[in-house]
Amino acid sequence: MDFDAVKSYLLELQSRIVAQLEKIDGRPFRVVFWDRPMGGGGISCVIEEGQVFERGGVNFSHVHGEKLPSSATASRPELAGRAFEAMGVSVVMHPRNPNIPTVHLNVRFLCAHPRSSEVAPDVWWFGGGMDLTPYYGFEADCVHFHQTCRDALAPFGNEYYPRFKKWCDEYFFIKHRNEPRGIGGIFFDDFNELGFEKSFKLMQSVGDHFLPAYLPIVERCMNTAYGERERDFQAYRRGRYVEFNLVYDRGTLFGLQSGGRAESILISLPPNVKWRYDWKPESKSLEEKLYKEFLIARSWVN
Amino acid sequence: MDFDAVKSYLLELQSRIVAQLEKIDGRPFRVVFWDRPMGGGGISCVIEEGQVFERGGVNFSHVHGEKLPSSATASRPELAGRAFEAMGVSVVMHPRNPNIPTVHLNVRFLCAHPRSSEVAPDVWWFGGGMDLTPYYGFEADCVHFHQTCRDALAPFGNEYYPRFKKWCDEYFFIKHRNEPRGIGGIFFDDFNELGFEKSFKLMQSVGDHFLPAYLPIVERCMNTAYGERERDFQAYRRGRYVEFNLVYDRGTLFGLQSGGRAESILISLPPNVKWRYDWKPESKSLEEKLYKEFLIARSWVN
Repeated sequence: MDFDAVKSYLLELQSRIVAQLEKIDGRPFRVVFWDRPMGGGGISCVIEEGQVFERGGVNFSHVHGEKLPSSATASRPELAGRAFEAMGVSVVMHPRNPNIPTVHLNVRFLCAHPRSSEVAPDVWWFGGGMDLTPYYGFEADCVHFHQTCRDALAPFGNEYYPRFKKWCDEYFFIKHRNEPRGIGGIFFDDFNELGFEKSFKLMQSVGDHFLPAYLPIVERCMNTAYGERERDFQAYRRGRYVEFNLVYDRGTLFGLQSGGRAESILISLPPNVKWRYDWKPESKSLEEKLYKEFLIARSWVN
Repeated sequence: MDFDAVKSYLLELQSRIVAQLEKIDGRPFRVVFWDRPMGGGGISCVIEEGQVFERGGVNFSHVHGEKLPSSATASRPELAGRAFEAMGVSVVMHPRNPNIPTVHLNVRFLCAHPRSSEVAPDVWWFGGGMDLTPYYGFEADCVHFHQTCRDALAPFGNEYYPRFKKWCDEYFFIKHRNEPRGIGGIFFDDFNELGFEKSFKLMQSVGDHFLPAYLPIVERCMNTAYGERERDFQAYRRGRYVEFNLVYDRGTLFGLQSGGRAESILISLPPNVKWRYDWKPESKSLEEKLYKEFLIARSWVN
């Protein structure tokens, strides 16, 4: 297992994504290198008050620690408490224009070392995925995003897209609202079934397909008109993003529990949010259409 | 154990608090009666866009269920999974004027029934507390709030205020920020050490001291001047309230996990919030003063 190759890929992916997002925005990201007191560190690339992106981050981190937090081992509780190494790239972008969806990408590699008293091999796995959260739904954009997700996984077998699409729908679900976070995409975790080299390639393919999945949507929507009504609905819906990330998201909880840098982790939170009691969209409005036609269990590509 | 007496007290407390807050605000609360599909229900009294209160709720709920969620049994994991009954009143008020602090009160009664296969008694306990979260710190208000908390507990013994004050400081702490949520108050849980009657009286005294603790602060601050700068800082600090409630607060997680009504539970979230990357207050500003003189481990009364 070539950990250095994974790290190099992740750093290169981070630079590539930042470069392309800067090009589209016209404003530079802020770059901060940070160390984690308990071991490891990261590079946070952050944009706020950009021309296209109101707030967002492209974070790389590489941390190691004495005890793998329980949030990282949901499906393998026997690994909780092992020493570990984790590296990954996370992207969340909150565009200003409510016609552009919020997007999320994560690709990660984890390795749990045996306890000193144990004779056991390292246990490693890849995880990641990308998903889209529109405020106003445009069918063609959702189809394009899912098609690109499918393309990313096709070289590894036709079973992966439907499997990871379903996993994404299940994972990015706000239970207390009985509502999906957005229109999904793909999600996978604990992934090592293809062996190290091929599993790594699958993760790379997911990372490489992020820009082709998202940039055409940004470009199509970035000059569309919007007003106060749309900004208001965006701020309301951004509340759901906060609810999901702080209550359910394993990556966020893993970061906060493992002593990660709070400002880097919480760059996923939107710049502004409104909560309003028991609000419902007007009948036959575009806001209602989002709920009825987009935030539902739905198949986007064949 | 007279469950009906607890319920009557809680309902009466809710009405009394709503009546007084309506009087000070000038606008009526919205009242919603709701049922919980799995058993029980509640009464939510909510205000939004009031003259004094921008958003807030005074909620009563009485729920019973098959399985006590783990969030309710942090210190007694052996009770997790038992059938239970829970009733309580929760108040969170977010005033519009940033000189008025946000306030929180909770008083609750829980009872865990034995499993049908077990011969064991019911296990019951009271919990609750109140705490204050200022945006701009005024020493006299903090002292008044803590004095009233001390007064609430004094009839039961002098040890309770220091013990519950410390518990509050420890509980309302945002670990990932290494920052207290506010200036504290009192907090207690798993409380049955005085027997049913006296433990119930202690909970009542906490509930009864909420209005005397908070209303004088509202009255003193409600006509003070503020501008965009103060509203902006309030929106930024409100983000911390969201982070605490969604990541750590057992009441919130208990409600969401036990199938409570999301809109009622999340009325504790502020009307508007701003997140800003790595923001720091200006040196010697009032905003810095909040961090340096108020959001610290501090004793407010002798």
